[in-house]
Amino acid sequence: MTKINTKPLSGFMELKPAEQILFDKIKETIEKNYQLFGFIPMDNPLIERKEVLFAKAGGETETQIYEFRKGDTDLALRFDLTVPLARYVADNYGELTFPFKRYQIAKVYRGERPQAGRFREFYQADIDIIGDETLDLNFDSEIPAVIVKVFNDLGFENFTLRINNRKIFNGLFLDLALEKESEWIMQIIDKLDRVGADMCQEELKEKGIHFKKVDKIFNLLKLKGTNLEILENLKKMEIENEIFDEGVRELELVINNLQSLGIKEKYFEIDLTIARGLNYYTGTVYETRLNDYSEIGSVCSGGRYDNLASEYTSKKLPGVGISIGLSRLFDQLLKKEVIKSNESTYTKILILPMEKNAKENALELVSKLRDNNIPSEINLNFDKKLPKRIKYADKLNIPSVIFIGEEELKKNKYTLKNMETGKQELVNFEEILKKNNEK
Amino acid sequence: MTKINTKPLSGFMELKPAEQILFDKIKETIEKNYQLFGFIPMDNPLIERKEVLFAKAGGETETQIYEFRKGDTDLALRFDLTVPLARYVADNYGELTFPFKRYQIAKVYRGERPQAGRFREFYQADIDIIGDETLDLNFDSEIPAVIVKVFNDLGFENFTLRINNRKIFNGLFLDLALEKESEWIMQIIDKLDRVGADMCQEELKEKGIHFKKVDKIFNLLKLKGTNLEILENLKKMEIENEIFDEGVRELELVINNLQSLGIKEKYFEIDLTIARGLNYYTGTVYETRLNDYSEIGSVCSGGRYDNLASEYTSKKLPGVGISIGLSRLFDQLLKKEVIKSNESTYTKILILPMEKNAKENALELVSKLRDNNIPSEINLNFDKKLPKRIKYADKLNIPSVIFIGEEELKKNKYTLKNMETGKQELVNFEEILKKNNEK
Repeated sequence: MTKINTKPLSGFMELKPAEQILFDKIKETIEKNYQLFGFIPMDNPLIERKEVLFAKAGGETETQIYEFRKGDTDLALRFDLTVPLARYVADNYGELTFPFKRYQIAKVYRGERPQAGRFREFYQADIDIIGDETLDLNFDSEIPAVIVKVFNDLGFENFTLRINNRKIFNGLFLDLALEKESEWIMQIIDKLDRVGADMCQEELKEKGIHFKKVDKIFNLLKLKGTNLEILENLKKMEIENEIFDEGVRELELVINNLQSLGIKEKYFEIDLTIARGLNYYTGTVYETRLNDYSEIGSVCSGGRYDNLASEYTSKKLPGVGISIGLSRLFDQLLKKEVIKSNESTYTKILILPMEKNAKENALELVSKLRDNNIPSEINLNFDKKLPKRIKYADKLNIPSVIFIGEEELKKNKYTLKNMETGKQELVNFEEILKKNNEK
Repeated sequence: MTKINTKPLSGFMELKPAEQILFDKIKETIEKNYQLFGFIPMDNPLIERKEVLFAKAGGETETQIYEFRKGDTDLALRFDLTVPLARYVADNYGELTFPFKRYQIAKVYRGERPQAGRFREFYQADIDIIGDETLDLNFDSEIPAVIVKVFNDLGFENFTLRINNRKIFNGLFLDLALEKESEWIMQIIDKLDRVGADMCQEELKEKGIHFKKVDKIFNLLKLKGTNLEILENLKKMEIENEIFDEGVRELELVINNLQSLGIKEKYFEIDLTIARGLNYYTGTVYETRLNDYSEIGSVCSGGRYDNLASEYTSKKLPGVGISIGLSRLFDQLLKKEVIKSNESTYTKILILPMEKNAKENALELVSKLRDNNIPSEINLNFDKKLPKRIKYADKLNIPSVIFIGEEELKKNKYTLKNMETGKQELVNFEEILKKNNEK
């Protein structure tokens, strides 16, 4: 036989059944919360016209795109969920209700060099709120609110959603007459966490920024304290620029809203060092860290942008959004044993008739259990010895097994075995339901 | 501005928000039932090594595969969910618990010529039960049982799952010494529904089958009546072949099991005309028709196979499975208005503070509603007039709006408007919860 390599492609996640169940539960928790906050689902093709993707791709991303040709059309696999959203909103503009709030939890593709913790196919869990011409700033506080609830529901306590506003930098750069240099300065600042303040300052000076200007930038970056203290200190800074003032006002509104929403202070903080490399963001920006695992980096990032779909429509579509890097997050948490798969199946009860004449009774029972919404299975393989048939429940950690033999048939009852304690008892149907609900 | 075509690619389904919500609900109903019957989830990469896919593809399918190259690897998009299942089971054989019951509801790709009701990217909703060396025949009745429950839960009453067993034909062909011709005879019989018995018989005779043999084939195909009557008549037929007898016994067991499971007779019937063109199936075969819309064809087909993964492993892996052609089914039902999207969002309540000083109160309220699991939204855009802000709820059919103004703040209550009846009342928080639960 020719041996075909059955491993999944390198960089492509493929989970064992128990891991998959855990992954699906996390995905469902995210989805339910997105719905709870008024986001509606979107599901668009994984394949786009090449020109659609390349209109928005750039730099490194462009080289990572999976592209191909079918018939006479150049096609490509989406590299994020934002580009298809932009195309969709441009295409369906007349039929959508604005602000258009959509969520999408789906796979995207980037042919990156394979390395630990990086995937070529991975899930993103995105939300965006898109306005028609304008979008009320208050929506910028909805994004952190839903993300805090998601991470709480996933069982996390020690995480921080960091918030900044790009206008604060932009205003500062205008004040310092550095607006032309702003893009590469931002990129350097974005490395602050990894390389430290000294290295960043050195690099900026080396690249020709006057040391007084570098000092002014870092005076701002160094502001620490509670959210309110940082806001107070920002207002006191000697920067005379309207964009700067606007950034501070916007940041203050988002922080105030989060307080009114009752979000605990420990879950969010102003972090003026966050720049989000992308030029794309124009106002509020977010990053989220699991503080016990800061080496993972930001698990969830996003921000406010001025115009979603300028490549596809002349309508102005400002928006605000965030994306959870779900596959990477899952992979890291699993490897660090922060999360653990403990369910190997959804099944709660395995029914094992011991005699052939118990078969009909057993089939009736499994139907009744399923009608009562209890995930159940039946094994009618009388050719195999009972211990072998029980082994299936053992291996899959099915919590209960029901035996039906002569005695049970005579008494019109069932022997229910708790697989964890080993305890067996003779019960009727109602008692099975009751015991299952107690768990 | 260069105008980029923002339409989705032809043959690629892209739904409007309300349709997407409906689609997701149908998908969830299928998934919950698959779980209820003990199937566990699988999610594997959309991209496979080309050699993996081509080992199992064949004929027309092969020409429809989307293939491409990245780096030095030949890649392709999966054209069904069975091939990745086969590769997965071969790859993870040592770690799986058999019988391995998995479900997968996911997209597959076939670059077909675009035509009405055919998609190039479409969802399949598959279940399979895979045995290690052997698989108890009783599992063949689990498949119809779950499918009947799925269609019931989707609101269908008038559908029939048709069941046959390939061994009945195979035995007949052996008896008639037509085993070499069996494959193309089966393909002709598979057209019976579309072209009628006369045309089929004619074609068989033209192709050289003796008219007595054609008669014997059609005597079998013409057997009608209740399931039990057909089984009785099959047993009485003058066919002396063990394979034939085995097929009849297997069919009888599946039918008897379905009766014991309490599945209503109207939902399943023996149909000896079903052959399922594919040579792949070796025993039980299934097709499912919505009787009011028979022109759609089978909405859900499958059967028993001897060996899932002979291309990838020397282990013998017999199985039984079925696949719902979800995208096609959804598309057809939507076009025929059998199903209708009526929800444009999951949101139940929109909160509209009417004065700026109600903002904090409104933010607190939306948080409390969400904590009580009521999907809620808030609009704080005081720049817009109230009717414009209400319009959002109108357009999305949000059932309730809450107003908060001076009076409400003073009384510490909320004005709750039922958007359907137009009725408004002054209520407290507990009453909002109560009214929402009543719906």
